[in-house]
Amino acid sequence: MAQAPKLAAYAGYQYFAVTSPGAFVAHVEISRPDKLNAFRHAMWLELRQVFQQLSTDADVRAVVLSGAGDRAFTAGLDVTDASESGVLSNDGGLDGARTATHLRRHIAEFQDCISAIERCEKPVISVMHGIALGLAIDIACCTDVRICSQDVRFAVKEVDIGLAADIGTLARLPKAVGSLSWVKDVCLTARDFGAAEALAVGFVSQVHESKAAALAAAIKTAGFIASKSPVAVQGTKDVLNHSRDHTVEDNLKYTGVWNAAALQTNDVASALMSVMQKRKPTFEKL
Amino acid sequence: MAQAPKLAAYAGYQYFAVTSPGAFVAHVEISRPDKLNAFRHAMWLELRQVFQQLSTDADVRAVVLSGAGDRAFTAGLDVTDASESGVLSNDGGLDGARTATHLRRHIAEFQDCISAIERCEKPVISVMHGIALGLAIDIACCTDVRICSQDVRFAVKEVDIGLAADIGTLARLPKAVGSLSWVKDVCLTARDFGAAEALAVGFVSQVHESKAAALAAAIKTAGFIASKSPVAVQGTKDVLNHSRDHTVEDNLKYTGVWNAAALQTNDVASALMSVMQKRKPTFEKL
Amino acid sequence: MAQAPKLAAYAGYQYFAVTSPGAFVAHVEISRPDKLNAFRHAMWLELRQVFQQLSTDADVRAVVLSGAGDRAFTAGLDVTDASESGVLSNDGGLDGARTATHLRRHIAEFQDCISAIERCEKPVISVMHGIALGLAIDIACCTDVRICSQDVRFAVKEVDIGLAADIGTLARLPKAVGSLSWVKDVCLTARDFGAAEALAVGFVSQVHESKAAALAAAIKTAGFIASKSPVAVQGTKDVLNHSRDHTVEDNLKYTGVWNAAALQTNDVASALMSVMQKRKPTFEKL
Amino acid sequence: MAQAPKLAAYAGYQYFAVTSPGAFVAHVEISRPDKLNAFRHAMWLELRQVFQQLSTDADVRAVVLSGAGDRAFTAGLDVTDASESGVLSNDGGLDGARTATHLRRHIAEFQDCISAIERCEKPVISVMHGIALGLAIDIACCTDVRICSQDVRFAVKEVDIGLAADIGTLARLPKAVGSLSWVKDVCLTARDFGAAEALAVGFVSQVHESKAAALAAAIKTAGFIASKSPVAVQGTKDVLNHSRDHTVEDNLKYTGVWNAAALQTNDVASALMSVMQKRKPTFEKL
Amino acid sequence: MAQAPKLAAYAGYQYFAVTSPGAFVAHVEISRPDKLNAFRHAMWLELRQVFQQLSTDADVRAVVLSGAGDRAFTAGLDVTDASESGVLSNDGGLDGARTATHLRRHIAEFQDCISAIERCEKPVISVMHGIALGLAIDIACCTDVRICSQDVRFAVKEVDIGLAADIGTLARLPKAVGSLSWVKDVCLTARDFGAAEALAVGFVSQVHESKAAALAAAIKTAGFIASKSPVAVQGTKDVLNHSRDHTVEDNLKYTGVWNAAALQTNDVASALMSVMQKRKPTFEKL
Amino acid sequence: MAQAPKLAAYAGYQYFAVTSPGAFVAHVEISRPDKLNAFRHAMWLELRQVFQQLSTDADVRAVVLSGAGDRAFTAGLDVTDASESGVLSNDGGLDGARTATHLRRHIAEFQDCISAIERCEKPVISVMHGIALGLAIDIACCTDVRICSQDVRFAVKEVDIGLAADIGTLARLPKAVGSLSWVKDVCLTARDFGAAEALAVGFVSQVHESKAAALAAAIKTAGFIASKSPVAVQGTKDVLNHSRDHTVEDNLKYTGVWNAAALQTNDVASALMSVMQKRKPTFEKL
Repeated sequence: MAQAPKLAAYAGYQYFAVTSPGAFVAHVEISRPDKLNAFRHAMWLELRQVFQQLSTDADVRAVVLSGAGDRAFTAGLDVTDASESGVLSNDGGLDGARTATHLRRHIAEFQDCISAIERCEKPVISVMHGIALGLAIDIACCTDVRICSQDVRFAVKEVDIGLAADIGTLARLPKAVGSLSWVKDVCLTARDFGAAEALAVGFVSQVHESKAAALAAAIKTAGFIASKSPVAVQGTKDVLNHSRDHTVEDNLKYTGVWNAAALQTNDVASALMSVMQKRKPTFEKL
Repeated sequence: MAQAPKLAAYAGYQYFAVTSPGAFVAHVEISRPDKLNAFRHAMWLELRQVFQQLSTDADVRAVVLSGAGDRAFTAGLDVTDASESGVLSNDGGLDGARTATHLRRHIAEFQDCISAIERCEKPVISVMHGIALGLAIDIACCTDVRICSQDVRFAVKEVDIGLAADIGTLARLPKAVGSLSWVKDVCLTARDFGAAEALAVGFVSQVHESKAAALAAAIKTAGFIASKSPVAVQGTKDVLNHSRDHTVEDNLKYTGVWNAAALQTNDVASALMSVMQKRKPTFEKL
Repeated sequence: MAQAPKLAAYAGYQYFAVTSPGAFVAHVEISRPDKLNAFRHAMWLELRQVFQQLSTDADVRAVVLSGAGDRAFTAGLDVTDASESGVLSNDGGLDGARTATHLRRHIAEFQDCISAIERCEKPVISVMHGIALGLAIDIACCTDVRICSQDVRFAVKEVDIGLAADIGTLARLPKAVGSLSWVKDVCLTARDFGAAEALAVGFVSQVHESKAAALAAAIKTAGFIASKSPVAVQGTKDVLNHSRDHTVEDNLKYTGVWNAAALQTNDVASALMSVMQKRKPTFEKL
Repeated sequence: MAQAPKLAAYAGYQYFAVTSPGAFVAHVEISRPDKLNAFRHAMWLELRQVFQQLSTDADVRAVVLSGAGDRAFTAGLDVTDASESGVLSNDGGLDGARTATHLRRHIAEFQDCISAIERCEKPVISVMHGIALGLAIDIACCTDVRICSQDVRFAVKEVDIGLAADIGTLARLPKAVGSLSWVKDVCLTARDFGAAEALAVGFVSQVHESKAAALAAAIKTAGFIASKSPVAVQGTKDVLNHSRDHTVEDNLKYTGVWNAAALQTNDVASALMSVMQKRKPTFEKL
Repeated sequence: MAQAPKLAAYAGYQYFAVTSPGAFVAHVEISRPDKLNAFRHAMWLELRQVFQQLSTDADVRAVVLSGAGDRAFTAGLDVTDASESGVLSNDGGLDGARTATHLRRHIAEFQDCISAIERCEKPVISVMHGIALGLAIDIACCTDVRICSQDVRFAVKEVDIGLAADIGTLARLPKAVGSLSWVKDVCLTARDFGAAEALAVGFVSQVHESKAAALAAAIKTAGFIASKSPVAVQGTKDVLNHSRDHTVEDNLKYTGVWNAAALQTNDVASALMSVMQKRKPTFEKL
Repeated sequence: MAQAPKLAAYAGYQYFAVTSPGAFVAHVEISRPDKLNAFRHAMWLELRQVFQQLSTDADVRAVVLSGAGDRAFTAGLDVTDASESGVLSNDGGLDGARTATHLRRHIAEFQDCISAIERCEKPVISVMHGIALGLAIDIACCTDVRICSQDVRFAVKEVDIGLAADIGTLARLPKAVGSLSWVKDVCLTARDFGAAEALAVGFVSQVHESKAAALAAAIKTAGFIASKSPVAVQGTKDVLNHSRDHTVEDNLKYTGVWNAAALQTNDVASALMSVMQKRKPTFEKL
């Protein structure tokens, strides 16, 4: 798996390795394995850049996101780094209101960086293994499909360091799974949970034996999605994200407006033809 | 089961057979089995009429919806019909904006026809077997309770023909089941899924061995619902649909206003009396 | 378990016994076991008082709610009491609009009393056993974490007495579990369901062998939560409740504003220190 | 003005006369002048048909709505008719809940008929003169631009017959004008107000000396609108209606999706060319 | 005016005098004229009680609210009192997060007290004269109809004491008047504005020469409203408040459900009869 | 006026001149007077940068925005530039769906650039004179306070070039002024309107004799705002923007959370002290 060719357009990133394990598929790897892929400030700024670039890259139709190394998807926030320069540091000397302004701006930017995964127009499949704590859950909640290996150890860890999770877990997790009792249990206790529990509540939709197997499955699914009409796939992602946050009636209207343009594509004819001729269709770039 | 008496008031429909398998229960059958119950334009117009009529028919308190024949609940949109006259045909000669206007109107009417099932004031139980693709999921999402047989083969098929599902699946499915990761998986890949998977994620709430067994169970449940106070049952359906699309606070207020009238019914006394006397209550028409 | 010390500040309540089974934990027991803990009008008024007091009691950081006796969490509304003086009684002589006004006010106050559990700033864990009908579900839906014993018998019972559930079940249940088909099934039929089914759909997140075991588990979890930073825990509850009723974007903004103040706490330093030193942190009152 | 040619496609309506006073302009006249244009049940059903037909009539790009005769735009609901067969009649013998169901269905259909004016894709300019009471305001609130003559006498009359206005005034008036204090004044007192007051609060945007002058101005404005790109005009109406009921952010997104199709029109080139060449553009039908 | 009889049921209040200047009309006077009717903590708690009592008092159908004395409607928050015990005092010794919790609870209760005016089921007309600063605007925004005298001096004063108005002005003013540019001007500068400006932007809907004249007009309007069907009047207030915060579609549905009960009143017949017989109707209590 | 010192930190911008006409006040001038300040693609990208920088510039507390030269605030979109490279150009060769994707991305970025004015944490006062068409209105709607000179000529010009205004006018104008009839009139006809009309409907809140007088007034108001507590001023702007797009209840809650931090400022004490001592307060940077 590791030998997939690098994507040249993404060579400049320091903390993320981007390769192409298949046609129209990009594989993004969080690459700070010596620190359990924990996130420094510079990393989440870079994460935003990576996904903004993928969003409009016509050579990419599906994305896989995983963590480098054997031990962790990511251990979350690098607390040492945060204590020095970031959200957990003390500005000093400011009154409570001014400190609050600085914190609010900092949180808003942090949220915006992680939300870039959700805003990315192409579907993103996350593959989680080993340690997956705190920010790991914020990130996972922004991906479209979640897959994990047997050995994964999840936790919504924030209350253990004295804060409410503010980078997206509390906003998205209740809408991603089917038991609010379970959501509150794991968010209020910060306890660990594993692959089986994650599957049972619907947080992940597949569990595999090993990281390698999970990654292979994710790449296969990404390849399958990338073989479909990109007009249809990207429209489906956009409309589903809209659906989560709007009423049924609102979404029906939005979808009608969306498809009024999206149906004016050659992909429908290509897709129908290929179904009849039982061959693989090709679609123009998007 | 097939020998349930026809409901005379519904005899004029071409594509739907409506019978009465029990007191206050209507059974609607999609009846185009030679074409796997695939939907032509005329069919969805007729579907709307059927459910508008059921909605205020005082002789009906619960509805079962199934597909005729052994092979399919419905194969979805009749693509040949759609290519000739409908959403997938080419108006020709119009500019992109004018084509979009025509498409938007067409989609809005199509959505409105299928949503008639959701708007029907009486609860609707769908029984799905065999092939249940594309439009089958849009339809199922509008029913209140979903039941299937072991042999069912579901798929959110739209991306395979180059489009985002626009008749309601993307609007309703995320709110009907408990795993957004699973929803995105099946919507983005268009892959098949079966009865066990549908049950595990909560898309259906019962699985039965055969179509006959599923239909029998649905009719029994419908009969059970039809034996309750229609004021209570129809109020419960309305308030639950409101609940899905509103905040808890909004729904509590709406429910208070609703019940301020609904509690002024003789059904409460009848129901309480029958509980004490352990006999079956009768309720006036509604 | 029963020997936990009474909390003196709560000694004045007639229908609720409040004890302290552990540091910063309050255990509220519905105490009308001879009537299966069925709710009279005076009881829900008292329930509101209890939870308003707990909400700002600096000596309480987590709450357990259960029913006294072996037979029932609660059998729900005391129908005899309701027929005499409450929502099911007839005001007589008033026209339909004026009767509706009285009913609307009555329902609004009833809802407000039960919602006090949700508004309580401290997390509430419900432990349900035996009979848990009608109002039991309304109450459970207001608690944060739901636990039950094997012998529990749940039912959304309202349609059986001729009315739509209006004290919160229809507003909250669809957002608490992951299968709308199941929600409509149990709400429209009023049928019983047990512990296994409740766990499968995510209504409860733990099932235990007996009431005693369930209660012990709840108290242990409550104690665990009470050992964490109260700033973090109470913020997490507030933000999760906001999350259920708002868009992701709205919630992210709200959370940023919340944490801009909440991060200005000594708890973060205490928590981080205790993680490093692997000892139990202490937190100031809140 | 009266000699404008009749539009043949609308000849079959009993209560509405539809003429064409200019290119692509339709003039709809409420025609029951001997009864002050008061609305019977059959009339609002017909009103819906008229505006549904106008909505997709490619020969119409702007609509003017006025009342026939010298005395009234419309006196509102025909109370005699309503007492016999409609919303104010007594179904008799039904309990309060069942009566409520019938009333709810009746109100919903009535609302839907009047809302057809708002749903009409083409802009509608109302011209009000003389008596304009009750339903007159519901209707006016559904039109896009409101013009009146000096002699107009408006009133939100409903409280005077013992009911809250339920056909749209209370829903739309607070969003149509700029003083909530004034809205509550006129809705709670049912008092008359005239042209000057209507202009001052923004309910109408033009006042003219006589009905004839107001009608002439409306037809001129309609003709002016009808000379513009129908893609641009109809898009503007749709997006403005969406704007009233959504957040700025939601509307920006919706508008982007809308214009992604709407900009693919030849009208932009035609419009730009005609601006440069200072001549009147022609646009294809829509 | 001052000799209107006291309403015995309201004799116990310290800061508010409640009289009855006409049938079914209550006049509430803020009574701390020696301090320009500035609000102490105890006053807003009492204000809530007064309006909760009025809300369900069957002898009251309309309310007038004014300030005692010649000099002020109210000078707003009593800053001395607030500095000693309230929102502007310093709890001391708590960290920023804990202080924030106390402030949040305090603000929430303060808001709840003032919002009691809006929640009052009966229409409230405010009469403002002289000094009307800060909290005066919060209070005025909760009343239904706003009237003032020529000498009034308004200001959204909060930024001048270093804070954003948090008791309701910023929430309600933008929806009460028709110029957002003006709203931001007066809220950001804290500058004074007078009667003419308030009328021009729609903040008040009537201006009178003197306090006495304004009060007389308010009492006359209140008497006029109190002579109408209370079912219609109270329904109109409730539905208009709902309208402000919901979409047109949502409000239409809510209104239909509301009126399904409200139309089952004898008031409609009484009102219609009195219109025909040109005499004053009488209505049962509500 | 023109001699106000340049702000060095903003010297690098090509199309915008930023000066400081008073303490803590920045004056941004659109500087392309030879082209009537019409916007090229590069200009709106730069506009975003300018306002992002102002948003967190601790030396700026209020902003004035005007257009350079005598003739125009701005003539709107530079149509020639747009035809060559932007939204009105033809990508060529792509199908309708792919063209729509490119247009949607383009519109979204354009909207985001203009919305930067609204997102700027400091209040922005726009001063409009001469020609103010199309994009001028989109921009004005993003500013907090709108001022104009007598000679201004406004128009929502978009339908005249065949499109619906998509950069914010249709989203914001209905919420900025008090007559929806007027909004639809000017948006559907694209007709000109002047200063008096703009004032009457509340689009602007001040009109001055000349551009110089308007600018002087704006700078004076900005200076006045800049002399207040920046904590209070910036909080007021944020909460008012939230208010426009949320319910009263939602906004009250949000404001409570906001002020729980904002009240922990030294500004309250400074402001109160300066009121008592009748001297000008000083506030720390923000």
